[in-house]
Amino acid sequence: MFLEMVKAEGLAALSYVIGDGENAAVIDPQRDCERYIDIAHRNGARITHIFETHRNEDYIIGSQDLAARTGAEILHGKNFDFHYGRPLAEGDEFAFGQTLKLKVLETPGHTDESISVVAFDTGFNEQQAVAVFTGDALFIGEVGRTDFYPDRPREVAGLLYDSIHAKLLPLGDQVIVYPAHGAGSVCGAGMASREFSTLGYERLNNPRLQLGRDEFIRFKVAENHYQPPYFREMERANQEGRRLEVLPTPKPLGAGKLAEALEQGMVLLDVRSPEAVCGAHIPGSLAIPLPMVSSFAGWYLPYHRPIGLVVADFDDLDTAVRYLVRLGYEQVEAYLDEGLHEWATSGRDYDTIPAIHARELQRRIEENRDFTLLDVRSIDEYQQGRLPGSTHLYVGELGQKLDQVPRDRPITTFCGSGQRALVAASVLLYNGFKNVEVCLGSMAACRALGCRIES
Amino acid sequence: MFLEMVKAEGLAALSYVIGDGENAAVIDPQRDCERYIDIAHRNGARITHIFETHRNEDYIIGSQDLAARTGAEILHGKNFDFHYGRPLAEGDEFAFGQTLKLKVLETPGHTDESISVVAFDTGFNEQQAVAVFTGDALFIGEVGRTDFYPDRPREVAGLLYDSIHAKLLPLGDQVIVYPAHGAGSVCGAGMASREFSTLGYERLNNPRLQLGRDEFIRFKVAENHYQPPYFREMERANQEGRRLEVLPTPKPLGAGKLAEALEQGMVLLDVRSPEAVCGAHIPGSLAIPLPMVSSFAGWYLPYHRPIGLVVADFDDLDTAVRYLVRLGYEQVEAYLDEGLHEWATSGRDYDTIPAIHARELQRRIEENRDFTLLDVRSIDEYQQGRLPGSTHLYVGELGQKLDQVPRDRPITTFCGSGQRALVAASVLLYNGFKNVEVCLGSMAACRALGCRIES
Amino acid sequence: MFLEMVKAEGLAALSYVIGDGENAAVIDPQRDCERYIDIAHRNGARITHIFETHRNEDYIIGSQDLAARTGAEILHGKNFDFHYGRPLAEGDEFAFGQTLKLKVLETPGHTDESISVVAFDTGFNEQQAVAVFTGDALFIGEVGRTDFYPDRPREVAGLLYDSIHAKLLPLGDQVIVYPAHGAGSVCGAGMASREFSTLGYERLNNPRLQLGRDEFIRFKVAENHYQPPYFREMERANQEGRRLEVLPTPKPLGAGKLAEALEQGMVLLDVRSPEAVCGAHIPGSLAIPLPMVSSFAGWYLPYHRPIGLVVADFDDLDTAVRYLVRLGYEQVEAYLDEGLHEWATSGRDYDTIPAIHARELQRRIEENRDFTLLDVRSIDEYQQGRLPGSTHLYVGELGQKLDQVPRDRPITTFCGSGQRALVAASVLLYNGFKNVEVCLGSMAACRALGCRIES
Amino acid sequence: MFLEMVKAEGLAALSYVIGDGENAAVIDPQRDCERYIDIAHRNGARITHIFETHRNEDYIIGSQDLAARTGAEILHGKNFDFHYGRPLAEGDEFAFGQTLKLKVLETPGHTDESISVVAFDTGFNEQQAVAVFTGDALFIGEVGRTDFYPDRPREVAGLLYDSIHAKLLPLGDQVIVYPAHGAGSVCGAGMASREFSTLGYERLNNPRLQLGRDEFIRFKVAENHYQPPYFREMERANQEGRRLEVLPTPKPLGAGKLAEALEQGMVLLDVRSPEAVCGAHIPGSLAIPLPMVSSFAGWYLPYHRPIGLVVADFDDLDTAVRYLVRLGYEQVEAYLDEGLHEWATSGRDYDTIPAIHARELQRRIEENRDFTLLDVRSIDEYQQGRLPGSTHLYVGELGQKLDQVPRDRPITTFCGSGQRALVAASVLLYNGFKNVEVCLGSMAACRALGCRIES
Repeated sequence: MFLEMVKAEGLAALSYVIGDGENAAVIDPQRDCERYIDIAHRNGARITHIFETHRNEDYIIGSQDLAARTGAEILHGKNFDFHYGRPLAEGDEFAFGQTLKLKVLETPGHTDESISVVAFDTGFNEQQAVAVFTGDALFIGEVGRTDFYPDRPREVAGLLYDSIHAKLLPLGDQVIVYPAHGAGSVCGAGMASREFSTLGYERLNNPRLQLGRDEFIRFKVAENHYQPPYFREMERANQEGRRLEVLPTPKPLGAGKLAEALEQGMVLLDVRSPEAVCGAHIPGSLAIPLPMVSSFAGWYLPYHRPIGLVVADFDDLDTAVRYLVRLGYEQVEAYLDEGLHEWATSGRDYDTIPAIHARELQRRIEENRDFTLLDVRSIDEYQQGRLPGSTHLYVGELGQKLDQVPRDRPITTFCGSGQRALVAASVLLYNGFKNVEVCLGSMAACRALGCRIES
Repeated sequence: MFLEMVKAEGLAALSYVIGDGENAAVIDPQRDCERYIDIAHRNGARITHIFETHRNEDYIIGSQDLAARTGAEILHGKNFDFHYGRPLAEGDEFAFGQTLKLKVLETPGHTDESISVVAFDTGFNEQQAVAVFTGDALFIGEVGRTDFYPDRPREVAGLLYDSIHAKLLPLGDQVIVYPAHGAGSVCGAGMASREFSTLGYERLNNPRLQLGRDEFIRFKVAENHYQPPYFREMERANQEGRRLEVLPTPKPLGAGKLAEALEQGMVLLDVRSPEAVCGAHIPGSLAIPLPMVSSFAGWYLPYHRPIGLVVADFDDLDTAVRYLVRLGYEQVEAYLDEGLHEWATSGRDYDTIPAIHARELQRRIEENRDFTLLDVRSIDEYQQGRLPGSTHLYVGELGQKLDQVPRDRPITTFCGSGQRALVAASVLLYNGFKNVEVCLGSMAACRALGCRIES
Repeated sequence: MFLEMVKAEGLAALSYVIGDGENAAVIDPQRDCERYIDIAHRNGARITHIFETHRNEDYIIGSQDLAARTGAEILHGKNFDFHYGRPLAEGDEFAFGQTLKLKVLETPGHTDESISVVAFDTGFNEQQAVAVFTGDALFIGEVGRTDFYPDRPREVAGLLYDSIHAKLLPLGDQVIVYPAHGAGSVCGAGMASREFSTLGYERLNNPRLQLGRDEFIRFKVAENHYQPPYFREMERANQEGRRLEVLPTPKPLGAGKLAEALEQGMVLLDVRSPEAVCGAHIPGSLAIPLPMVSSFAGWYLPYHRPIGLVVADFDDLDTAVRYLVRLGYEQVEAYLDEGLHEWATSGRDYDTIPAIHARELQRRIEENRDFTLLDVRSIDEYQQGRLPGSTHLYVGELGQKLDQVPRDRPITTFCGSGQRALVAASVLLYNGFKNVEVCLGSMAACRALGCRIES
Repeated sequence: MFLEMVKAEGLAALSYVIGDGENAAVIDPQRDCERYIDIAHRNGARITHIFETHRNEDYIIGSQDLAARTGAEILHGKNFDFHYGRPLAEGDEFAFGQTLKLKVLETPGHTDESISVVAFDTGFNEQQAVAVFTGDALFIGEVGRTDFYPDRPREVAGLLYDSIHAKLLPLGDQVIVYPAHGAGSVCGAGMASREFSTLGYERLNNPRLQLGRDEFIRFKVAENHYQPPYFREMERANQEGRRLEVLPTPKPLGAGKLAEALEQGMVLLDVRSPEAVCGAHIPGSLAIPLPMVSSFAGWYLPYHRPIGLVVADFDDLDTAVRYLVRLGYEQVEAYLDEGLHEWATSGRDYDTIPAIHARELQRRIEENRDFTLLDVRSIDEYQQGRLPGSTHLYVGELGQKLDQVPRDRPITTFCGSGQRALVAASVLLYNGFKNVEVCLGSMAACRALGCRIES
């Protein structure tokens, strides 16, 4: 029996290959699916089953791609109208090789059709589970979101409570937990950085599992979550079942050809580090540092225009393409050859964004300077602690609420560490704002320096 | 917090890198230790601590090599006179990053100085463990050997029982188990092929853990284990602490130069598949198929002569070198360029070994032919089921018991599947026996064909 | 300006990526074309042009596949009715980046539409070439075959002479030669093992270029070449322009499932080493050692049945698939999981082929034993030196001439080193011959031993 | 026969592995020498000879490292007092396998002991060369420097002329040229970007080879070359023969630990892109963009202090270490974990450098603003074209001539494209200058914009 976790960085999505003998299953595959085939191959197995623990809203699932390559059957929960695959019901079982049995458990709450997949080593025990793939029902240190059915919030929070307490925990303390997301995902803020745990450890230590049913429902209903516009696109794609032939291969363009492409409608996404974007960037580009692309591209990048990339180096290209493809952006057509250097030497214009140190920011606050301190963190973070005089607008929603930002004063963007502040600064510049600065270090630096923080 | 398992194929030895923030620990490193450095590096951490769960007897540990490369401190149990490193006592604690705490538990039985290393995620719970590195105390589906103190067999079996029941299991069902070996190791025959489990799952399902203390001791004392001669060499090396500069790079030799080297004392190890060795091999070579090298090279390969290799293809060379180095063979100096093809075209002699099918073997038995059917499996396997008229000699011990094998009759070697039978045939030919055949498929084929089996 | 050679092992076919600035061309791409894209990418260029130096007969060209992935234009000589791409005429020029110019030279002879592509570094000299891609017109140490127009042999040999002497050599001694094949190809027997040369070096040292026009024509007309049946298939494919979606991924099958597949019409190709096939192989399989697959699979493997593979190890699988796909075999569906070991332990039958040493063979010849010594080398090799009493039948043609082989005598197959002899032995066994042995080492061993050789 | 080129990016140094049969030679190996062993290994050969074409001054040669790993013999020209290896004389010959012969030609001029190594394919011609390794005597489109013997400039220029015209060119137009450097090296400014050529092509097209002897000498004597201080260190090392055990593995440090290390004497080298350094960098660090490290680290980095790195991402670390090790910097001990982000969030100070666009620069010049426009290109580049009012100081020499830069005016650094300007800006800031800006794009942008350029 073999089991390997495959991580989609950026999304912090976790998928799994589990198999025995000649057969294997994949749980929640990504679209760049050659990796699953390699793992199965290396273990002398072929992929015969693909389980989707739920209809995802934060990325396009790779089931169709993987099925086309392997002939495997796609399986998912029965309580949603998927246009492909086969619906499963509680208790359905699947055998692999001599000793692996997978069994379906309906665990609604995050979504109605959510399932968990329980693994048994029948060579040891037919009845007692050894592991469970919990999808977005139970994470390590956290539980799934329940904000996708706004008309019945209490009901679905209760469903999730019951799924965890009446379905999962009864499997026993000895069961290893393999969730669909790890720390850094938009699917839950409280996850542990650790990627290994058990039902027993979660039962005892997961803060959400210490709550009684009513308390749990109250907590979940009161949670703040953002629903980016691309969630709708992902949901549609994951209902229909979308398929990708091959990963797009963006082509190198020199400055001249890139400038032409921009005029013809290409969108330019700059995925370099915040300090590099501050140092110099192409006017009209949208800047999202590479590790943030999975979380924020979907808020700002249109779906029906070709996309060009500005990367720090060639190796980042492949990562950026994978991140975008997972979000359904398949028209990644070009990148700037030799990075910004090529652009600068062509004599074309570039912009800069001054980086403001937390100490300087504090000084301005104390001196009561006239400027907008725009805090773009989540509302939860903002409420837990903020600088005096700051204004809040979530980075994802900024584009739709630009009228709330005064155009006649200097603006300093601010977040937890400077990365989202950079995205916000880029969004402002893209929309014609002038006099925008970014606080690199942001709240982390302020805390380290002992600045005054309100809450 | 990150955790990665590193597997040494062949040995079926499992080592681990666990860390948080800037620091990491390695548990039971192999000598080809660049892999640990890479893992730590990739996770933005440096290796600061090396834990040896016990003094190994089946391979040379890589602690000294890894310490020389990283500056990490080597740590091991206090109840043995190691000539390097720092002794640990029950309860010693080590913190890594913000949230990882490792704590030492003395778990003697397999050896006196055996320790387990317990992992805590202090971000969640300072007291309740989330994982434990059990060394050779507790495996998945099996427990450690207790045959290394022949003068006090009952005592050490009892120690092991107590280590498991009074130290490990009380950590709680929720604790994930990370042992030092997986299936295929010489350190225990009953391990699961699965490499993930918990204390809870083992408590409930590990057959050895279902026994009472007395029953357990009786069981362990009655077990049959082989102690190859190289165990002594490994123990000595692991007491002193041996260090390797770089992996040896065997040089390609043509047939002529190889023949010269053989005359000057080189030992030739043929690691090709059984059927390839049967088809043609170099007279005087010792044949051990690559996946068996970790288990059997130590029985037959001398330590103070240069070693030459015959490989099926170039990629096997690196694997063979790693396998040998882990057993302390550092003088891997040459390999036959272009494999056996080079030798055959040079006009030099080669030998063949006829492969006998199980069906033909059965016919010979039924016809009462005059030949020695030499079963070289372990005594346990032999006692569980054997062909009529077969003679038993364990493959490892065959070299010392050649006088028990008649030289005037045809010999057919036999084992579980044909691999050890091939090693035995090679040992016989090496020692001047003639008329040796090997039963490819061996007992597995006999069972599939429904041959008559005695027990 | 960058230039990289990409070698297709087995076929000994050489393709090239050459480019400057943002653009690059590929000369004679293979079907597994992701490598060209990688090379161009790494050099900051995109592939905009694909040159076919001629319609190939020994493999399916990857132009369509590469064009589909890159949007590049396919270009080839105008004197053939290609169903895709754009015809080129003498003197057509293409510019890449600032300094690379490629220019077309019609160099017929091997085929009517053969072209060479001349490279200029215009930063240094607009008129004097620095390199030339010669396709199958001029090799290193050899020239192209001229046996593809059997009704006008003298004419095409003369055309090739003129192409070389009136078109290529006048480019100047300083020009580096990049041919379409290296040593080991079926496209010419006399090639150097060296893969670098110049027009000057070839003019002075290539034996074929020392001949006068008439002498050259006589030499070429008298040459012996074999035309395997798959050449027709390749020619058809390369006229139409065939496209591959992705490389096939053969699935692992256990012995039982493989046996079923064989009954349902799967062809089993065993690509292990000669000695491994001798040691044990599956009855009814066709054995062609991996390095020989490109040369001999096309003689024996049918095009419209699924193919299963027996490989020595997993890494050979990818190589075998690439070799087969280049020959147009796309239905590579399965492989035997765990190699022959799996088959043997299942109790199913396996066959062996005794390996006969050259010394033993010589003894039999001297003793006038009654057996067929079947020499399967090319007729040229046979005429240059053979063992007394041997019979000749070329390995490729053996399948069509089985009636020339007596079935009532023992047969020993024989070739240059034992590899083709193994293929021949396998073909005989496949066709019901009994009592077949193979001489590993063959002529090479005989020469080394000083056996009597006739010529 | 096989031949592979191994490129050391950054240095633009070219080394080669050439071999036949079981043996191979390496020409001018780098210190990170596992690559040569891999290549030889893959070709079934072992490295038996190492040729140094000359005592290098721009990097530490890897001969000792490679010899220690392979047992190969080190060989170099006899006219220098090397403290290791064996001296060679004109005409010495070495045979490899069946067909490769290497022959020594003394080709002084660049240095007294410079040799070229001529390759023959004796299977074709014993007398006529097919290739030549020319070291620093002849490059593609350029010839070697002759400024290392300041007391006899005319003599050594004449020696080089004679080496080329009386030794190399007579080998014949057909000979392929394999030099020791390609475009981008500090060893010659006029090299082609192309890395393939022949003696014939160079004879006809290399501008230096069109000059008569006197003209050539005048040209060479008048050339301007910079001799960085590290050349002395390299020469000493390459005379003594220095050896490296393993590549250093820098350890990740958080901001706090790094700050401590800096206080204790660590030098911090920032190898990120110019725009990233402009955006934010650590005060007191020295910034040299990664591709420039080979050329400029030796001017500024001290040899006896530990070095820390700031990298854009983890993959750059390995490259940076290789670049530094080749220059003899072996104490590369640490890097900033998570790049500048880690530093910024710790609240520590960072500096920025404003990037000035060429258009803005031109405006300032036209408006006669009071500032120093510091052009740091080579004197040759400066003389070929410069902006009005600019001051020249070569970037390498800036550190020793700081007193020539007024401290009381704003400074804008300027070069060919912005990279060296960034290095210069960093050097100025490091030395306490304030009010420093950098012109990204620099002369390339000015030319593209049609700015007024003087010459």
